[in-house]
Amino acid sequence: MLNPKSVNLGKARSPIRELFEYAKTRKKQIGEENVFDFSLGNPDVPPPEQATEALIKIISECEPVALHGYTSAQGDFSVREAVARDLNARYRADLDADCIYMTCGAAASLTITLNALVNVGDEVLCFTPYFPEYRVFSERAGAKFIAVESEEGSFQPDLNKLERALGERTKAVIINSPNNPSGVVYGEEVIKKLCALLCEFSARRGEPVYLISDEPYREIVYGGVKIPCVMNYYADSIICYSYSKSLSLPGERIGYIAVNKKAGGFAELYAAVCGAGRALGYVCAPTLFQRLVEKCAGLVSDLSAYKSNRDILCAALEEYGFSFVRPDGAFYLFVKSPEADANAFVARAKKYEILFVAGDGFGCAGYARIAYCVSREMLARSLPAFKALAEEYNLKN
Amino acid sequence: MLNPKSVNLGKARSPIRELFEYAKTRKKQIGEENVFDFSLGNPDVPPPEQATEALIKIISECEPVALHGYTSAQGDFSVREAVARDLNARYRADLDADCIYMTCGAAASLTITLNALVNVGDEVLCFTPYFPEYRVFSERAGAKFIAVESEEGSFQPDLNKLERALGERTKAVIINSPNNPSGVVYGEEVIKKLCALLCEFSARRGEPVYLISDEPYREIVYGGVKIPCVMNYYADSIICYSYSKSLSLPGERIGYIAVNKKAGGFAELYAAVCGAGRALGYVCAPTLFQRLVEKCAGLVSDLSAYKSNRDILCAALEEYGFSFVRPDGAFYLFVKSPEADANAFVARAKKYEILFVAGDGFGCAGYARIAYCVSREMLARSLPAFKALAEEYNLKN
Repeated sequence: MLNPKSVNLGKARSPIRELFEYAKTRKKQIGEENVFDFSLGNPDVPPPEQATEALIKIISECEPVALHGYTSAQGDFSVREAVARDLNARYRADLDADCIYMTCGAAASLTITLNALVNVGDEVLCFTPYFPEYRVFSERAGAKFIAVESEEGSFQPDLNKLERALGERTKAVIINSPNNPSGVVYGEEVIKKLCALLCEFSARRGEPVYLISDEPYREIVYGGVKIPCVMNYYADSIICYSYSKSLSLPGERIGYIAVNKKAGGFAELYAAVCGAGRALGYVCAPTLFQRLVEKCAGLVSDLSAYKSNRDILCAALEEYGFSFVRPDGAFYLFVKSPEADANAFVARAKKYEILFVAGDGFGCAGYARIAYCVSREMLARSLPAFKALAEEYNLKN
Repeated sequence: MLNPKSVNLGKARSPIRELFEYAKTRKKQIGEENVFDFSLGNPDVPPPEQATEALIKIISECEPVALHGYTSAQGDFSVREAVARDLNARYRADLDADCIYMTCGAAASLTITLNALVNVGDEVLCFTPYFPEYRVFSERAGAKFIAVESEEGSFQPDLNKLERALGERTKAVIINSPNNPSGVVYGEEVIKKLCALLCEFSARRGEPVYLISDEPYREIVYGGVKIPCVMNYYADSIICYSYSKSLSLPGERIGYIAVNKKAGGFAELYAAVCGAGRALGYVCAPTLFQRLVEKCAGLVSDLSAYKSNRDILCAALEEYGFSFVRPDGAFYLFVKSPEADANAFVARAKKYEILFVAGDGFGCAGYARIAYCVSREMLARSLPAFKALAEEYNLKN
């Protein structure tokens, strides 16, 4: 008998990936221009030109054996140094190279972190709505995944509900701001209160709850919103990061784990990260892209297209009568389903060739995620379809 | 409490990685030219020039959003098609794109395969000597790892011992030819007998034992030796591969899993691979290197340097009085320790600044692994040190 969990996960696929595959097929059938694909968080903005130039320069000029050779499992020292320097400069974090562990992207950052922390039966908490793979990753690491409802309407953390969910077996809390799928950002006040709560609870229990901050969308924020660095408010914190979105390199699988130097038992914690990475088969992060990060750690793609898309989409959806929380970051909009069953809503949108994902997989029934990291042209072309969809629901009456 | 297995793995490191780190430090202390570093299987031969040119061409000419975007989790279709075509052409394998799952290198190929197959308490068998991480990967997947002794002196599979080790809970047998650390190659006759044994046992038990063939060194063979394709002899077989050695890209993390189309319940098996990859956080293999594989699947670096190194090293070690099995493949030589404790032998070699790894970690006490994927110059410079080491043991008397 094969491992039944692996078989089921492989058969079920993630709902996002499922729709991604459907979109590919549908585009072949009726032409790419006739499908309005908002299914996947695949950036539509190219990497910064400097990044492309740097890639070519690295390949052309570096000695190829060293360039493509193994690095230390935690990543090349000078690459990690560059990452730490960048975080210190931008967030007044107090990190050095030995706090950083380079990974094959955000999913790897999370699975490695969870496998470092979790013993079978531990609990991992996360606010709704959440990226569905958090559950998959937590459960494979041996944890029970517990969704904590966020505040109705705003999708901000509900700290009372969090307090009630914390218990003897709570190993970690995952937060994700800017949030996938809601685009909501947690401000400094919320983060401060959340950290104070965890601090107090950990002290009372005599054992820390780890705060895992998954931040692949950190740089994608609108209108001067600031993302606070959790390390400045909570010692037992770990940042999981990926350059997928900031440098528009989602397929290249490059990111990092940053372990707070102030965490209790830092050396053990960092060793656990190294050990988990080893056990899961992550030998080192791709070296060419490590070198790129060394040169481009602080660089960000031109994200203005996402802002324009957000403004256009929000204005249109509002006009058509849809309800949603206006996103302050990431490139997702979480729209309230006009009927109770968001899957029926998604199916109805499909009739108009609009593809997006029901919120059920994100732990939030009655909503759907629109990934607006798409071309302006497609967005413009899609608006009449959204309008027709709204009219089918009679939203303006 | 952190996950103690992760902490211990992180602290212990692999003995190979441990020595790799020591080598880096030692080179800084006494100069690179004075350290004879045979610790790591990091190819010293550059990638083929066509591969470097192809990389630059891909980056310069492909539309960057598509190039660096996510592919399907199992890899881009045309990349998988290219891999299948290459395997079919070279090994008369009967594979198509949907048998291939692109991975982040050999370690990922193995962890994903093991997590697809294993239920807690299953057994994974492997002949000695074996790559130490096989144990780590098997145990993390929930299996009991059982080392089966190979034939004394030749390091060929001992099929009698294998037969005795097969049991109710045997889920898989891992083979690795050309072998790391011995350089031994399993010929067609051995593979045929091994497969016949597994066939008969699986039929009797009514449930297959999977044959996992880990083949990162497949192309590195000397003197016209042929590597038989297990798929031609055994239905329930899976090939784990990496381009690390054939294209000299070990740090870039690109490889694949090939699932035999003839395997019983193929669809479930392939789904289990997809599910395991997902649960471990492998979103997709790095896209730029997927594209490279599409163009260069059949290409191999100039491996003649390894052959010359083998010939020089074998001649010298023989002359100095060391015992070993002459390697037919890979770039490792497994030398018999002149004293019972190979760790003492390794420590003594360190005095002469020769760095190699004791065989204990490979499940073979009394031997040590010399990775001769090094520059000709270093190899030449190291020979007097090997000679002095032999003299310390008085090997010629």
